[in-house]
Amino acid sequence: MDGPARQRSLWQHNLAVVLDEVRAATPTSRARISQHTGLTRATVSALVDALVRARLVDEVGPAPRGGAGRPATGLVLSPSGPAGLGLEINVDYLAAAVVDLTGQVRHLEVRQVDQRGRAPAEVLADVADLAAGARRVAGLPLAGARLAVPGLVDAPGLVRLAPNLGWRDLDVLGPLTAAPDWPDLPVGIDNEANLAALGELATAGRERSFLYVSGEVGVGAGIVLDGALLRGTHGWSGEIGHVTVAADGPVCRCGARGCLEQYAGQEAILRAAGVPAGEALPADLAVRRLAELAGADDPAAIGALSAAGRALGIVAAGVLNVLDLDAVVLGGSFAPLAGWLTGHVEREVAGRVLTAAWSPVCVRACSLGTRAAVVGAAGAVVREVLAAPSAWIDGG
Amino acid sequence: MDGPARQRSLWQHNLAVVLDEVRAATPTSRARISQHTGLTRATVSALVDALVRARLVDEVGPAPRGGAGRPATGLVLSPSGPAGLGLEINVDYLAAAVVDLTGQVRHLEVRQVDQRGRAPAEVLADVADLAAGARRVAGLPLAGARLAVPGLVDAPGLVRLAPNLGWRDLDVLGPLTAAPDWPDLPVGIDNEANLAALGELATAGRERSFLYVSGEVGVGAGIVLDGALLRGTHGWSGEIGHVTVAADGPVCRCGARGCLEQYAGQEAILRAAGVPAGEALPADLAVRRLAELAGADDPAAIGALSAAGRALGIVAAGVLNVLDLDAVVLGGSFAPLAGWLTGHVEREVAGRVLTAAWSPVCVRACSLGTRAAVVGAAGAVVREVLAAPSAWIDGG
Repeated sequence: MDGPARQRSLWQHNLAVVLDEVRAATPTSRARISQHTGLTRATVSALVDALVRARLVDEVGPAPRGGAGRPATGLVLSPSGPAGLGLEINVDYLAAAVVDLTGQVRHLEVRQVDQRGRAPAEVLADVADLAAGARRVAGLPLAGARLAVPGLVDAPGLVRLAPNLGWRDLDVLGPLTAAPDWPDLPVGIDNEANLAALGELATAGRERSFLYVSGEVGVGAGIVLDGALLRGTHGWSGEIGHVTVAADGPVCRCGARGCLEQYAGQEAILRAAGVPAGEALPADLAVRRLAELAGADDPAAIGALSAAGRALGIVAAGVLNVLDLDAVVLGGSFAPLAGWLTGHVEREVAGRVLTAAWSPVCVRACSLGTRAAVVGAAGAVVREVLAAPSAWIDGG
Repeated sequence: MDGPARQRSLWQHNLAVVLDEVRAATPTSRARISQHTGLTRATVSALVDALVRARLVDEVGPAPRGGAGRPATGLVLSPSGPAGLGLEINVDYLAAAVVDLTGQVRHLEVRQVDQRGRAPAEVLADVADLAAGARRVAGLPLAGARLAVPGLVDAPGLVRLAPNLGWRDLDVLGPLTAAPDWPDLPVGIDNEANLAALGELATAGRERSFLYVSGEVGVGAGIVLDGALLRGTHGWSGEIGHVTVAADGPVCRCGARGCLEQYAGQEAILRAAGVPAGEALPADLAVRRLAELAGADDPAAIGALSAAGRALGIVAAGVLNVLDLDAVVLGGSFAPLAGWLTGHVEREVAGRVLTAAWSPVCVRACSLGTRAAVVGAAGAVVREVLAAPSAWIDGG
């Protein structure tokens, strides 16, 4: 690197360091940042000024004193700064969320639409429309968008396989960004359970290693080990819905027999509980109906949830034996049903995980409820801004 | 850091950099190392001299020319330099191996002894004796030892649980290093499948992400993702022997039902094949007998190996769906039986792994055969010397 390039890279690095100081200890002050980072007061001031100009940081009333001298100005992440747009395509709904720099959800819209049988272009036009609406309503500058899909994702922007959408080797980002309503934004794509797991990691912050299981029509998982998402060799990890529960069980959409999805997928549970779904009743209402029936001790509902919980517990126990994680987090439609699932999962885990005696595994519902994936997607964009603010300052 | 401390740390770092240059491109020369690393010729020469004095590097005949000037002296890792001692306790054998700096196995001893019913102190005295013998026979300076055990290991030196040895919360390193025969060496302890997987990674170097499955009396696994071992939160990953194959299957030693070990553990296979084992026939001979029977198309042997291969394939498919790895490597007693197992594992993996169509999974026997764990253990010590040669130079 020549002199100017090196200086520029140092400036970018220090911008991120200072922004992280503000994030970690809100409100903080220039003086305290200088103490923590070893950067001179003058350098910190120049960096803070740039962050304030870019609306990443707000100056508020006096902060706790950072030593001798004048009362310091408090510094906080700006709630009117660049926000992240999360988008989600799922089998029976579409969603958009805007999360601001401080992590607050500023906008959330969910449309119940069954994607099965629809042309992908039609679905993506709806997503573009949701994105445009979110930008309008949120009234915040958007740094970028992330799209969550229930399937295997390949760079750049390709959905390799989303069995429950019927998508295979489909370019998603091309048609999305070409849609007339699409707001001109950089956009990435990721698996919904991965994004939900990242959202859970950022929001709940309880465990650093957990299995996030997302129950929708399909069942997906995001695996967090030591605070990092395990993506696998190709980014295709987490296909827990196709782990075998019973080698000779019912045939799955994927062609194999006895996959978890056939026991704990939303449709399998509703069918076993005798709750009509699909055309007859939108999925979110069907899940609510199932919870009501279970709450009223309906034997079919209780039986269906017990069978699902047991299957889920058997598969989760296998993952825990292999990966040694601290918790199982139930997300998607498992979240509102967690009251009837958790006990069964706990029982299988306690009985089947070799190390359960030394280190009990926590089984719990996710903190973000059914909207974990879309909120996690928006949060992923925000984390990128926080990690590399110069990209926003230069481009925004 | 003050000046001298910082210089010392820089020296240590550069020693490792230079040693890694020698490892990566044998033979190399001082001139070429200087070109690659950007260190001055004088600095490289001082570092190389220190490495030669410590017997980590040997000077050999002229190396390929590194530019203009005199013919350069070739530099190679020294086969007479500090070596690693691997030790292994398994249910039906004990083993020791010495691996030199260049990765060659210089000594290997395996004793068929059934540990069941023996007092741990007696077993550890035998291990100390094996270690003393290895040191004597190998005639190399030993940098340290690593002990492989078939169970859950906790720092410092504790075996939490080795169900097939009947060990629970047992201090292993204390009694081992107190044994009269123990050669005075730093020693660490790790799970056998983890060490075998690391050995496979270093030796074969084909895949960067694989599931190593070790078949002994128990069935363990080491998981390598992107070239690194996944140890889990507590270092207890890889307990694949207790992943459920059939929820209501036979009761396992661990108390759960239908664990993989009940289908693919050595004893389960031998029993199903009608081969006597234990008192009647040492396990290695029993496995050889089984292979002979299978080679002669004995229906019971073929049936037992098919059932084991199928169970192994179902569980491996689950791990691949969850973790997205490139290969399944069959180790331990699965290695000599791989000819009869591989096809069944491949079939289950092809039928059950969602992404198998895009990225076929390689199923193969491990390259180190049944001795992967003890050789991997010795290699782990060597890798530590290569990564931090100053520790050896200062202490050796």
